[in-house]
Amino acid sequence: MLENTGRTELSSLGEFGLIKHLTQFIEIKNESTIKGVGDDAAVIDNKGKQIVVSTDMLVEGVHFDLAYMPLKHLGYKAVSVNVSDIYAMNATPKQITISFAVSNRFSVEAMEELYSGMMLACEKYKVDIVGGDTTTSKSGLVISITAIGEATKEELIYRDGAKEGDLLCVSGDLGAAYVGLQLLEREKKIFIESPDVQPDLGGYDYILERQLKPDARKDIPPLLKMLKVKPTAMIDISDGLASEILHLCSQSETGCNLYEDKIPIDPSTYNMAREFNLDPTVCALSGGEDYELLFTIDQSDFPKIKANPDISVIGHMTSRKEGRNLITKGGSSHPLIAQGWDSLIKE
Amino acid sequence: MLENTGRTELSSLGEFGLIKHLTQFIEIKNESTIKGVGDDAAVIDNKGKQIVVSTDMLVEGVHFDLAYMPLKHLGYKAVSVNVSDIYAMNATPKQITISFAVSNRFSVEAMEELYSGMMLACEKYKVDIVGGDTTTSKSGLVISITAIGEATKEELIYRDGAKEGDLLCVSGDLGAAYVGLQLLEREKKIFIESPDVQPDLGGYDYILERQLKPDARKDIPPLLKMLKVKPTAMIDISDGLASEILHLCSQSETGCNLYEDKIPIDPSTYNMAREFNLDPTVCALSGGEDYELLFTIDQSDFPKIKANPDISVIGHMTSRKEGRNLITKGGSSHPLIAQGWDSLIKE
Repeated sequence: MLENTGRTELSSLGEFGLIKHLTQFIEIKNESTIKGVGDDAAVIDNKGKQIVVSTDMLVEGVHFDLAYMPLKHLGYKAVSVNVSDIYAMNATPKQITISFAVSNRFSVEAMEELYSGMMLACEKYKVDIVGGDTTTSKSGLVISITAIGEATKEELIYRDGAKEGDLLCVSGDLGAAYVGLQLLEREKKIFIESPDVQPDLGGYDYILERQLKPDARKDIPPLLKMLKVKPTAMIDISDGLASEILHLCSQSETGCNLYEDKIPIDPSTYNMAREFNLDPTVCALSGGEDYELLFTIDQSDFPKIKANPDISVIGHMTSRKEGRNLITKGGSSHPLIAQGWDSLIKE
Repeated sequence: MLENTGRTELSSLGEFGLIKHLTQFIEIKNESTIKGVGDDAAVIDNKGKQIVVSTDMLVEGVHFDLAYMPLKHLGYKAVSVNVSDIYAMNATPKQITISFAVSNRFSVEAMEELYSGMMLACEKYKVDIVGGDTTTSKSGLVISITAIGEATKEELIYRDGAKEGDLLCVSGDLGAAYVGLQLLEREKKIFIESPDVQPDLGGYDYILERQLKPDARKDIPPLLKMLKVKPTAMIDISDGLASEILHLCSQSETGCNLYEDKIPIDPSTYNMAREFNLDPTVCALSGGEDYELLFTIDQSDFPKIKANPDISVIGHMTSRKEGRNLITKGGSSHPLIAQGWDSLIKE
């Protein structure tokens, strides 16, 4: 640990920097700890079968705004976000624990709404709520969920297995959750200025649902199994495509070429981004919260996936020294950077 | 779930009421879920070996006050509190995940302090930090920890196994953490009124350490094993002796007689309670945060434990219809009630 040499602002490290900084001295003590900090989930061995554990915390005012996020949707989303990490290990979620801190601003009915969304998601993912903790908060709502899944040793897919030449693939489409959020924030602003004006959210179902009630891609691991494709590395997209690709490259010690024209973007996302004067590609790269699966496969597996409408090949892995690049529609190459949300917000 | 019939205040249910209310409709879906909500930890089967999972959330201003709780101690305590639940299942903690939400009021150095306390505790309990989540908070610090342990099916001890006639036992002594907190609050008040007066905490090491840096009783499960005693039910004392006894009685469907004169209270706890005009017995019954283990054993095991200075027999389990009673030093019997902290605070 550092000597007491003064004050370093948390913002100077950022979330990943802080985690790396704090966890740098961890030494694994138990034989059953197969994988600790640094992937979508931890892996614990238990006589051959592996237990996978992942945890996420959601904070009111940071991760959600109850002005436009119904509590039931929030509950659903909180579970989806967590099990998504388990699927990203190619494992099956089985149990979750749910903790929350809640202020007396919330009623029992409000907590029921939240919990009913959680239970709905648990139904969908067939996971059992096995525990948790409920406590008071001085202000706002904090939700912390830990998801536990299982897989055989052979099934598990980490972030560090990508090799030079592997194809970079993504499920579904990207950027919708971010433009959905922009739409909700616009309507909130209109509502605050003119409370009599009803929000005009008709025709935006897809992008709104992607923001308010995202689903984890539980269908992708069995699909890949059926196609007899085992990805070499996998991660889920919570912070934006660029950030997740950089995680795969850095942990697999590779470079990559990502092709802008291959990034799957739904027409409604594209149109809404344009309405907000946002670049749809930037929404996909940095918007986050898509909860799609990003993975790399051996080139020889390409024929098995190429006809599948749920999977897009968006680039390939290169050697580390070639760097991580975005090849634009115009054909020029730019270093891929993880901008995060802040730089996207226009105000 | 209730129909939308208006607003019910959270305070009308209380923490346990809320948990019970929210979790009443949970149906277990996975074969591997052996025990869900309702014990110190959940139990997950994995080919014979059982995985035990417990989670706790600590909120600034609710569970800790950084005016007198050094961050390193807070980190240590946060881990102790969680592994205590694993020991209370007679299991061995092996891994933990740590999440926190933190505002920019905290510096990197502050987080290092917190984390160094967590790592110190992890050293002590030989558990691996395998993951977590770090996020921003709008105000204050929230810590959520999930501990994972293991045990064989035969080793596990639940809350519901106590039988009529079993002896009620507790490790260590009780009430110290609560009077330690009173002392810290008094010194804080003096400090606020007269910042030049140095806090006078000399000679109070034991009760202060019990509040600021409590240890989970990792020594008790192996001790019991060595003594060839397998408790019939077990729980750790986080909310106060009375509350935990009532949990055992209610889940085991028994009554109990608790003898006031048998409750182990350290002399320094006793004296400090008197200084605050508090009844030492009430501090033990309702103070909480002792993190001692409360358990029941078959009467035939009494000879094996009676000479042990770390274990006190404080009563026995009765039939349900006899009720849950505190037998006072004067010999009269009163219904045992869980008061919680609020009723203890004199201001």
